[in-house]
Order: sequence, then structure tokens, then C-alpha cells
Amino acid sequence: MADNKKMVEEITSMEEDFAKWYTDIVKKAELIEYTSVKGCMVIRPYGYAIWENIQRILDGKFKATGHENVCMPMFIPESLLQKEKDHVKGFAPEVAWVTHGGDEKLEDRLCVRPTSETLFCEHYANIIQSYRDLPKLYNQWVSVVRWEKTTRPFLRSREFLWQEGHTIHATAQEAIEETERMLNVYADFCEESLAMPVVKGRKTDSDKFAGAEATYAIEALMHDGKALQAGTSHYFGDGFARAFGIQYNSKENKLEYPFQTSWGVTTRLIGAVIMAHGDNNGLALPPDIAPIQIVVIPIAQHKEGVLEKCREVAEKLGSKYRVKLDDSDNSAGWKFSEYEMKGIPLRIEIGPKDIEAGNCVMVTRHNREKSVVSLDEVVELAGEKLKAVRDGLYNKALENMENRTYKCLDMEEIKKTLAEKGDGFIKTMWCGDEACEDKVKEETGVASRCIPFEQEQISDKCVCCGKPAKYTLYWGRAY
Amino acid sequence: MADNKKMVEEITSMEEDFAKWYTDIVKKAELIEYTSVKGCMVIRPYGYAIWENIQRILDGKFKATGHENVCMPMFIPESLLQKEKDHVKGFAPEVAWVTHGGDEKLEDRLCVRPTSETLFCEHYANIIQSYRDLPKLYNQWVSVVRWEKTTRPFLRSREFLWQEGHTIHATAQEAIEETERMLNVYADFCEESLAMPVVKGRKTDSDKFAGAEATYAIEALMHDGKALQAGTSHYFGDGFARAFGIQYNSKENKLEYPFQTSWGVTTRLIGAVIMAHGDNNGLALPPDIAPIQIVVIPIAQHKEGVLEKCREVAEKLGSKYRVKLDDSDNSAGWKFSEYEMKGIPLRIEIGPKDIEAGNCVMVTRHNREKSVVSLDEVVELAGEKLKAVRDGLYNKALENMENRTYKCLDMEEIKKTLAEKGDGFIKTMWCGDEACEDKVKEETGVASRCIPFEQEQISDKCVCCGKPAKYTLYWGRAY
Repeated sequence: MADNKKMVEEITSMEEDFAKWYTDIVKKAELIEYTSVKGCMVIRPYGYAIWENIQRILDGKFKATGHENVCMPMFIPESLLQKEKDHVKGFAPEVAWVTHGGDEKLEDRLCVRPTSETLFCEHYANIIQSYRDLPKLYNQWVSVVRWEKTTRPFLRSREFLWQEGHTIHATAQEAIEETERMLNVYADFCEESLAMPVVKGRKTDSDKFAGAEATYAIEALMHDGKALQAGTSHYFGDGFARAFGIQYNSKENKLEYPFQTSWGVTTRLIGAVIMAHGDNNGLALPPDIAPIQIVVIPIAQHKEGVLEKCREVAEKLGSKYRVKLDDSDNSAGWKFSEYEMKGIPLRIEIGPKDIEAGNCVMVTRHNREKSVVSLDEVVELAGEKLKAVRDGLYNKALENMENRTYKCLDMEEIKKTLAEKGDGFIKTMWCGDEACEDKVKEETGVASRCIPFEQEQISDKCVCCGKPAKYTLYWGRAY
Repeated sequence: MADNKKMVEEITSMEEDFAKWYTDIVKKAELIEYTSVKGCMVIRPYGYAIWENIQRILDGKFKATGHENVCMPMFIPESLLQKEKDHVKGFAPEVAWVTHGGDEKLEDRLCVRPTSETLFCEHYANIIQSYRDLPKLYNQWVSVVRWEKTTRPFLRSREFLWQEGHTIHATAQEAIEETERMLNVYADFCEESLAMPVVKGRKTDSDKFAGAEATYAIEALMHDGKALQAGTSHYFGDGFARAFGIQYNSKENKLEYPFQTSWGVTTRLIGAVIMAHGDNNGLALPPDIAPIQIVVIPIAQHKEGVLEKCREVAEKLGSKYRVKLDDSDNSAGWKFSEYEMKGIPLRIEIGPKDIEAGNCVMVTRHNREKSVVSLDEVVELAGEKLKAVRDGLYNKALENMENRTYKCLDMEEIKKTLAEKGDGFIKTMWCGDEACEDKVKEETGVASRCIPFEQEQISDKCVCCGKPAKYTLYWGRAY
């Protein structure tokens, strides 16, 4: 087990330095590699395969809810970006500008899309004339660029991969329903496929997307007690339509402005999975998105019949799951720690004694629990174990979130809680006044996360000013 | 049928103006829409669904041949692009330059990737130490930017979608084999899934990719007799490895330079499909890539039982094929021409009389052939018809290519052939001298396309200088 030990020692423990633990995993599980462009990374095969699984599942959900994929240009002319005033104000400071094509200086600079509302609006104006053309339910899988000052792999990078849904509707109600529907799609995906519980809610006005009437978000809690915004969904009203002159002829033959939404999740979800489920042995991946769901490891593989049996089992499992057989000449101990590092949900060990008894050993990654099972039922039992991994990861993350959600009645209680318990979700009442929001952040360091859909009457007074409260509000230190 | 007529009249006929016929189809089949960024387009749902099918099939073939997907940054620092001299010379004149991030001027300008060899090389240098790290067989699905002067949808645009495979090997032989393997993957895909015959061959030295030792290509012939390069595969030798300092420790513990390849196909394939199979009624899509393979159209749909039967048939077919039932209140005639325009391979009509007789009418798009078949066998027969569409499209395209491939022995014959027959593939012998290649192009207007793998001894003299010939060479006017 010398190899095993060496391998594990290479990761900083999360208790010692959470940020270093995170980057150690990202590098040593071979998810990414740095490049000479600051804030831009190579997503390596293992990391990209996780993203492909996320894409496949979400894309299926988008199509099942009637959405179609399109592809917009990556460039936005400066003049187009400027059409919606709040939007340009929010994004212009952090865009990358193309000023030259070959040797020629461009008359109108092009920004590399930080998000594509303006491009979709230009397109809608071209293709929408009548109520018969509505709704349009579009999505695209692309990368976008935001010139961030400080960057971290997956969590905040200058270029990142995402999907951006953009829809346009005849009525405000339809658009609001769409905004909520897609937030629910995200929340369900996070809970089912990422095994990550989330809080659904609305952002306060100070935290809305640039140009939106309302922004909804899902917020998750990481191992270190910090909050992570895992997905957002925006309702635009008819603001963009008015700015871009998008109008349609209604059934009553009147020119009307339509209503819009947009919604997105990014490769940040991979960062969330690392920080929600990982441990000091490495990644722990939920089965739905694991590039390899089961690894089969031969024990004493030089002994007669071992490799043959392992191949037979791997092939049987392979018809139903994503399976790898590691028959390399590395030691079994090295393999154990390698695949723990890579977060593979289920390990199956097969050695001469197991074969003799008609058994194999199954080890679930998240709790390292061993069980000896019959080879006759290996496919069925593997399925049960994978389900147990998903549920185990989810319950652990839920317990973490519940244990670290603190109700506070006043400013002193927030400060005391943070000092005694460390980071977590702080749940308070709020009067709705931005001044109070700012003051809480300034004095305690936690920022508003969202006004949860599940409102709860903790008290009747604002946590800050003591005046009558309007909302329950979640706070936290955020990624 | 008034609607029907109106619809068809909207496309310019290909005999009248081939270029206009092409852009009419691209717009009216709703594949793309123009944007305010010159040379950049919106790929609309129907166009993007074709690309998704191309991606899915090719991605499966890449993975089956051992390749893994990755994702590189979209930016290349100018200093990195300059490391391989031929490469930068070829690409620098046509790249888009990012000079500012937010308000800050960048010290090292970034180009938006026109291709990613330099990024892959930087990455290889970071991750390859030993022969155990080789080969790496990578691919990525991204968009790239080349600042073209004249642009046409799909065929030549400033931004286009593609896949770029990049591999690195311990030996030259392995790399050469990979280059050929992937060209064959492309050729098989074009022939099977796009129903488009291609000529496989090597580019002349004057036409190689910037930085390559050898470039292989597949060339297809369009309806108008022009040639279209449909995919390329490059062998780099160890030139990039030397320029980027990529070295590995061999089994014999010696530092060696590895050997590289790259290969790509683009959204241009959609343009190829339009021009290889389309007609004056619109698109004609091969079943493998058709977003909708079968459209079911009710006849006299207000009559009792018609819609129910259509739904039943569509559902049955839907378990095996991509099917659409159009139960809108547009006329059947309008629907016929709409789905002919969109190139849907198979149309199924079901009316009261058909139902009474237990039949339906099947119409294959490419030849508009009608047949009456039993509803009991509809799933099986639909499969046969779809196969017939693929074969029919392929044979027609093959016939076009064969009829328009002209063997020429000297310059006069080339000129005479082009004057009498119009564009096509000109097949000649060639001495291998670049001066002759230039002279043929200058005097006749056709450029070298490729030195075909299937060499044929047409004569023993160069078509231009009359000296001893080394190769058979294809020429043509190219897209």
C-alpha cells in the first residue's frame, strides 16, 4: 500500500486549506490544466466527459420541455450591445474587445459575447411578425467570456462553457411561467443528477441580472459553508423588446411587444460537485454524471482465471453502465487510491478467493463501505449500489446544509453565529430595503443570496432595522 | 394548390442562378439568418439540428477509434501563435485580434483561435513526459474565426463550427496511420451518412495546411460542377514538437520528439449537402442527418378518423424514426411543398380512402416517387424507403461526379473541355513541378484539388510541360 499512501498525501486536506484542497483535486483528478492565457483553462478528457454528461441530461430536459437549440455568433457589435442601457452598463466593464480583423481596424468594435440577449433580440426582430411566430423557445451550448480580475478553475474563469436559454412569449404570464419552469428544471437536475440540494428563490433587486425585471436562482451550500449560485433564470418583461423594437401582430391585429426570459447554468456546476461531495481522498461523483460509473479491479491478476472473470463481469456490467476494467500492471493499492481520487462511484474487486466463492467485493466511493455480493446478481446489485451512492451523497449534502442553516433575529446574532459556527446560510427576516441589505453585508460580511420560494415567518421584524419584515431572506458568503 | 405554387416560385431555379438558388434554400428552409456582424450567421433550429446529427454520428466514430473530447481556450496569445513560423505566416493575416479586456489594454494581444495547434502544443508540453503518456488522441467541438473577405453561409463564414482532432504519437508511422485513418472516417461518413461520394487524396505542396508536412483531403463535386473540399487531415511530422519543445522519455530512456496530426470537418458539410442533393423544390436531406426523417400529412383531416389514424401511425413510426405529424390547418398542398423545401426524406399521406383500404401513400423526396403501401407494414416499409432515399441520393451524386470527371492530356484539352462541358473534375497527369501547377491555374482557371490515392496512368506526360509525369492529379474550380 506504499503507492496508495503516497498518492493520498499529495492532496492538501480540506481542513488545512480548503482552497488548496480544491485546486489539488482539480489538477490531480485531471479535470483541467492551466494555460498561458490567464483565467482560461484546458478542460481535460475526464473533466470534459463530466460536462458531456451534464449536457446530455440537461439537453434532454430542455428538448422535453419544447426547446430547440440554435447557435448565435460569438461577436456582438458595440452598437448592438448598447441598445439596452442597464444591460450594457452591467457587462461593458468586463468584456473582451476585438478591434482588428487581420490588419484592418474595425469601425464598430466587437465584443466577445459575455451573454447573448442582444443577439437573440436582433434575431427575434428579424423573424417575429405575428402571434403565430410565438413563442420561440431557444437554447444554445457555447462558451462566453467575462474579463474577471480573480479567477479559479470552474468557479470563475474568463472563458467558461454554458448553456443559455432564451425565450420570447406573447404574454407576461407565459414568460414568468417559463422563468419558473426552467428554475425548477435546474433544481431537479441538481437534486437528482448532481445529488446536491438547493434553495430556490428570487434575487433581491440589487443582485438582479443586468436588464432583468426579476432574477431567480438556485443556491447550494459547499463543504466549507460558503454559498454557490448554481443556476439563474431571468424574467425580462418587455424591456428588451422595447429597446430592440421587437413587435408582433396580435390575434386582434394590434402591434404588441412580446415578453422575454433567459436562463443558464455553466461549467461552474463541476466546481459545485467537487465542493459539495469531495473529501480528502479526492472527488466523489454522483453516478449520473460520472464518466466511469464502475471500475473493476482484479486482485492478484496474475493468478489463473482472475483476468478472464474480471473481463466477463466488466462486459456484463458494460451493457448497462459506464464501466472500466483496469488490468494495467499498477498495484491494486495504487488503483484503489487512483479511482478514489477520480471519484468513481462504485469499485468492484475480484480475486481468486472471490471467484472460488462465486462472489465479488463492492465498495461505494462516498462512504468506502464494503460488501461481498454474489457474482450471479452483479448487474442488479451494482444498480442498487449506484442508487445508494446518489442517495448517500444527497443525504450527506442535505444534512450539511440543514446543520449549517442558522436562523438569526438581529445583527448581533448574525455576528455571533458566524464567529462561533463559521460560514453557512444565515436565514433572517428583511424589510425589503436595500439600505438594510447593504448594512448587513458591510457589518457582517454575508451577502443576500435569495428570497426563498418557501417563505417562513421567523419573526415579524427586519433583522437590521427592526421595522416590519416583508420577506425571509438567505444570506451567505458566496463563491 | 395555389399555396404550393407560390411557395415554389420563391426559389430561384438552379439553372438560372446557382448562387442565388443556394442562398434562397438556406434562407427559406430556415437553416440560417443573417446578423449585423458581417460573415457571422445565426444557425436556426432546423440548421442546427442537422449539425447535431452530424456531430452525434461523427463523435461516435471518433470515440470508437479511441479519441477523447477536450476543450481548449478560444484565445491564443500572439507570442504563442508565433512559435511555429509557417503556421503563423498562414494564419496571422486572417485572425481577429482582442486588444482590450474591459478598459485595460492587453500587453500580449490575443487572437481568437483560427485553429488550435498552438494551444494543443502548449498543453502537450505540460502533460507529456514519458512514452507512457503517448499517444494522446484528442478532439474538440468548437467554433473558430477566420477574417475572410468574401463570405457565404456555411461555405465560407468568418465564424464557423467545426471539430478539430489533434493527436500526438511516439512514431512517425503511427501518426501517418492516424492521418489516413481519420481521412477514411470522413470519407465513409460522407458516403454513408451524407450520401455524397468523395475523392480521397493528398494536397499538392502549394496547397498544404500552414505548418503541415502533408495534407490529405476529401473532395466532392457539386451540382454546378464546382469542387468542394469537405474535410482535411494533416500530418505534421515533429515540426510543431520541435518548435514548442515537446519531448518525451523513450523506453530506451532517451529524449525524443513526438509526431503530430490534426484533422477537421466543419458546418461547411451542410453547404455540401445542399449543393450535392438539393433541387428546384428545395433541400433534399439524407436520412441519417435529417432532423425529421418522416412527415405524416393527413388528407381531408376534418373527416372522421383521419387525424386519429395519422397520430397512431406517427407514434408507431416515432419509436424508430424522427417523425413529425403536421396537423396544422394549412392545406395539404402547402404542406407538401413546405416539407419538400425542407428536404424531409419521406412523406406519408393518409386520407379517408387510404384508411378504408388499410393503406397509406409514401412519397420519397429525392425522386417524388409515390407508392401505396399497407399500413400493417408501415414501420418496416418506411425503413426500406429511407434506405432507398440514401441510395438514390448517393447514386445520383455519384453519376453526376462520374459524368463530370474529364480526363485531359494537354492544356488545350482542358480549355476545350471547360468551354464545352462547363465545370467538373479535370483529371490529368502531372510532373510534380509547382510551376506547371501555377501555369494550369493561370491559363485555364482550374486549381489542383488533390493527388488521388487511386492513381491511374492516363498518359506518361505532364499535362502542362509534357515532361515525364509523376502523379495523376484532380483539378477543379473550388468553393
